[in-house]
Amino acid sequence: MINFIVMISGKNYIGNTLSAEGKVTYTTFNPKLNLKNPWTFYEASEEELDKAVKLAKEAFLTYRNTSGPEKAIFLRTIADNIESLGDELIQTYTLESGLPEGRAKGERGRTVGQLRMFADLVEEGSWVDAAIDTAIQDRKPVPKPDLRKMLVPLGPIVVFGSSNFPLAYSTAGGDTASALAAGCPVIVKSHPMHAGTGELVASAIVAAVQACGMPDGVFSNLNSSDIQIGQQLVKHPEVKGVGFTGSIAGGTALYKLAGERKEPIPVFAEMGSINPVVILPSALEKAPELWAKNYAASITLGTGQFCTNPGLILTMEGPGLETFMNLLGQEILEIEAGLMLHPDIHRKYEEGQKIMSGQEGTLVVAEYQEKTPPNYAKQKILGVDGQAFLINPNLHREVFGPFSIVVRCANPEELKNIIAVLEGQLTGTIIGEAAELNVHQDIVAQLREKVGRIIYNGVPTGVEVCTSMVHGGPFPATTDSRFTAVGTEAIRRWVRPISYQDWPDSLLPEALKNNNPLNILRRINGELTKSNVS
Amino acid sequence: MINFIVMISGKNYIGNTLSAEGKVTYTTFNPKLNLKNPWTFYEASEEELDKAVKLAKEAFLTYRNTSGPEKAIFLRTIADNIESLGDELIQTYTLESGLPEGRAKGERGRTVGQLRMFADLVEEGSWVDAAIDTAIQDRKPVPKPDLRKMLVPLGPIVVFGSSNFPLAYSTAGGDTASALAAGCPVIVKSHPMHAGTGELVASAIVAAVQACGMPDGVFSNLNSSDIQIGQQLVKHPEVKGVGFTGSIAGGTALYKLAGERKEPIPVFAEMGSINPVVILPSALEKAPELWAKNYAASITLGTGQFCTNPGLILTMEGPGLETFMNLLGQEILEIEAGLMLHPDIHRKYEEGQKIMSGQEGTLVVAEYQEKTPPNYAKQKILGVDGQAFLINPNLHREVFGPFSIVVRCANPEELKNIIAVLEGQLTGTIIGEAAELNVHQDIVAQLREKVGRIIYNGVPTGVEVCTSMVHGGPFPATTDSRFTAVGTEAIRRWVRPISYQDWPDSLLPEALKNNNPLNILRRINGELTKSNVS
Repeated sequence: MINFIVMISGKNYIGNTLSAEGKVTYTTFNPKLNLKNPWTFYEASEEELDKAVKLAKEAFLTYRNTSGPEKAIFLRTIADNIESLGDELIQTYTLESGLPEGRAKGERGRTVGQLRMFADLVEEGSWVDAAIDTAIQDRKPVPKPDLRKMLVPLGPIVVFGSSNFPLAYSTAGGDTASALAAGCPVIVKSHPMHAGTGELVASAIVAAVQACGMPDGVFSNLNSSDIQIGQQLVKHPEVKGVGFTGSIAGGTALYKLAGERKEPIPVFAEMGSINPVVILPSALEKAPELWAKNYAASITLGTGQFCTNPGLILTMEGPGLETFMNLLGQEILEIEAGLMLHPDIHRKYEEGQKIMSGQEGTLVVAEYQEKTPPNYAKQKILGVDGQAFLINPNLHREVFGPFSIVVRCANPEELKNIIAVLEGQLTGTIIGEAAELNVHQDIVAQLREKVGRIIYNGVPTGVEVCTSMVHGGPFPATTDSRFTAVGTEAIRRWVRPISYQDWPDSLLPEALKNNNPLNILRRINGELTKSNVS
Repeated sequence: MINFIVMISGKNYIGNTLSAEGKVTYTTFNPKLNLKNPWTFYEASEEELDKAVKLAKEAFLTYRNTSGPEKAIFLRTIADNIESLGDELIQTYTLESGLPEGRAKGERGRTVGQLRMFADLVEEGSWVDAAIDTAIQDRKPVPKPDLRKMLVPLGPIVVFGSSNFPLAYSTAGGDTASALAAGCPVIVKSHPMHAGTGELVASAIVAAVQACGMPDGVFSNLNSSDIQIGQQLVKHPEVKGVGFTGSIAGGTALYKLAGERKEPIPVFAEMGSINPVVILPSALEKAPELWAKNYAASITLGTGQFCTNPGLILTMEGPGLETFMNLLGQEILEIEAGLMLHPDIHRKYEEGQKIMSGQEGTLVVAEYQEKTPPNYAKQKILGVDGQAFLINPNLHREVFGPFSIVVRCANPEELKNIIAVLEGQLTGTIIGEAAELNVHQDIVAQLREKVGRIIYNGVPTGVEVCTSMVHGGPFPATTDSRFTAVGTEAIRRWVRPISYQDWPDSLLPEALKNNNPLNILRRINGELTKSNVS
């Protein structure tokens, strides 16, 4: 582990070099104090951007051949260095996000955990999905060639930091960790709301690049307060893929931009989601307190600033419904109002929830009434009947913050029809007894088609980092439902298969050699095995 | 096996029903006789198209839940039915393509082989990549949920038949077979050059749908002589993915169209490739006859109408080069001129090779001179020096037909620079001794970055159907290098992962249940196993 002291310089990292050639500057904001933070950040110039991408391209020539164990040491060193940033990182994080220290530490744990998870994955090595079909010289009418396939990295990847996870989905977050693990250099477009946190983490990565002898340019960090740098990155011919976490408008714009390139590139954008929750009658009747409490907590968790925040609760008219709604209203008002990440986000929340409240047929179930300091969000629950919700797409949109709509459906058919008109979602949740789910199989089936993860008797907030996690889903939850942004499988976004035909054993990559020097699991003539090719 | 006699009706299959509501008709063409074929095809109307997609959506509701063994029977019945079409299919194929009977039978073998390969894959069942991470109730600070992931089908897929493979890449080709195997309904946009062949194969699929009790609409076949039906299909909101084999212009247009939809969808387009071949000095010196013979054969195979046709041969000035070029010229002129698929394709070939011959610095190495019947292509080899090739992107384009350019590079550096400026390719080939490849590692590395498959001491034509095959590659070889169009992995284009959280065992899909009723290989807490969840 390296011990180093970092001062926030406000500069970009162009590879390992701090650089501030641009004239535009900006600051970050402390939402708690309602004041600017003290640092000045230098927006990357077009020349700096180009330099970063060209360095990344150059670095790719060696980094793509870096072994799994070497990449593992690199990723673990990044994790260690992030921990070594200690309190400076935690304090900067809280100053730039308004999020509490406990959250900062938890998110740091998740971030270093992800880096170490990918280190384990590439150290073990079987993730490259090696497959070998051996030759059959005497096959008729033509001989069968020897074919050997494995996954290889795409090239330089651009990662857009997210506003709501300054660590776990930003500079050294899941996109960066998975791309570096795959063998791709990364250029981060730093999120302007937490540029200081971003620079600190970038310094930890750069120190790891140097300590581990990785090529200069395998990582760069570009400051940017508006959309231009991001657009130029996506258009740069040497960029081969994009990871993004943010709004539907932002993600869709980048996706279209990437599709308009001379050479289109994949964009994995994780965007909006209202994470519908279906509460079946038994739960309303038998456990209204439990679910009211759980959902009041989930809706307000992190001041509602999670992509998996439950923004839509679908119920059916029946005995328990009034009680549940009353309890949910009571529970949510017992929670203190929460600080939001930034005045802009707070303003958008206020606008968003007002637009919702103005829609025909909506009633306020609960709204926080106490006076709050600046940038605090007043949590709010609306109620609406099924028909009014069904016909009004404005009500299907996400309000980013501690807000949710409870829909009272007349019957299961109406509830199912509502799910059918919803857009794609990260998650869907069903609450009820198993026997009840069996009765409502069509609702479950309809929900399953819309989501990347389907939850039983729980809350959508909380995204476990593991192989079985899908943090993704049909558009607009993401731009490509075939991938996940969280878990080991996230590495698949940045790789492609390549097949070697009749290649001499001595020149094959280690993963494909006859004697299996990496001791990885491979599919040889259809059988998964660690054996040699005989 | 069903025995049935089919007459070509010229109608569309809207699900299981023959339909000809449109007013526009067209015919196919016999390039050998230079005459129209006798059948009249009815272009699908917009209403028929909409009906086909809506039926597909409806069929998806049941077909997505069809078990692996049931899908396997369905796929094998399609294969059997295609074989049952017997001579009528072979004759129609030859009448509509000008390709010889032997090729027709070989391609039929490949087509039914692919269907049976996917049948085996889904019958065995492990392809769904099931992963299970079990709960840890007492984990701190929060309990770990139970998460279980598997691959599920995307929904209705549109498949565009290709001109050059009336069977293996068309109606029941690899795209259709892999999509049906995945659990996706398929709507084929029939290729207008072999609509009769397409209808016969469609009838075999529809008979299988009926015999196996599959839902009506799981397959439709739409006739179309221009681009409109295809565009409308790609824009239809209920279509969830597209498979295409054809030109760069056609594929790119559809890709962009899909990206402009309200809900973008994945398009896997396999498009152009000139399949560069590097012949190193030792091969020119030691075996010029062998490689001249092999490449004369590969360039003219199927009248050069393969996507893996070697259109570019890169050499270095040296002792063996003149001999090789003379021999290649001689060998290729000893092969008889071949018939092309269609007058339009022949016309484009003539235009293309003329444009190439007019480029500065090119010399004719060999050109077939005998008089030929209509629609026969005269094979041609051009020579050009490295510098002239390097600076002229017009020379980097594909000429679809029996045409190739031999580039004489001054040195290895120039050869490497040429590979660096090439676009993405399906294949790259290196010919030489293993020790020589070691000397030219940078050339190999540069070539590897550009291709989906890299071949040693062979020819690129001939695409083995197996797990280790990659028939794909960086743009414009395909629109997404992360997937392959050939081999078992082609199924991944049409599926997405979904994760079940804390789901009751009785309601989980079979693939994810505790007791592993399908007896498939699953990743349980990181370990690949067929064991139960304990």
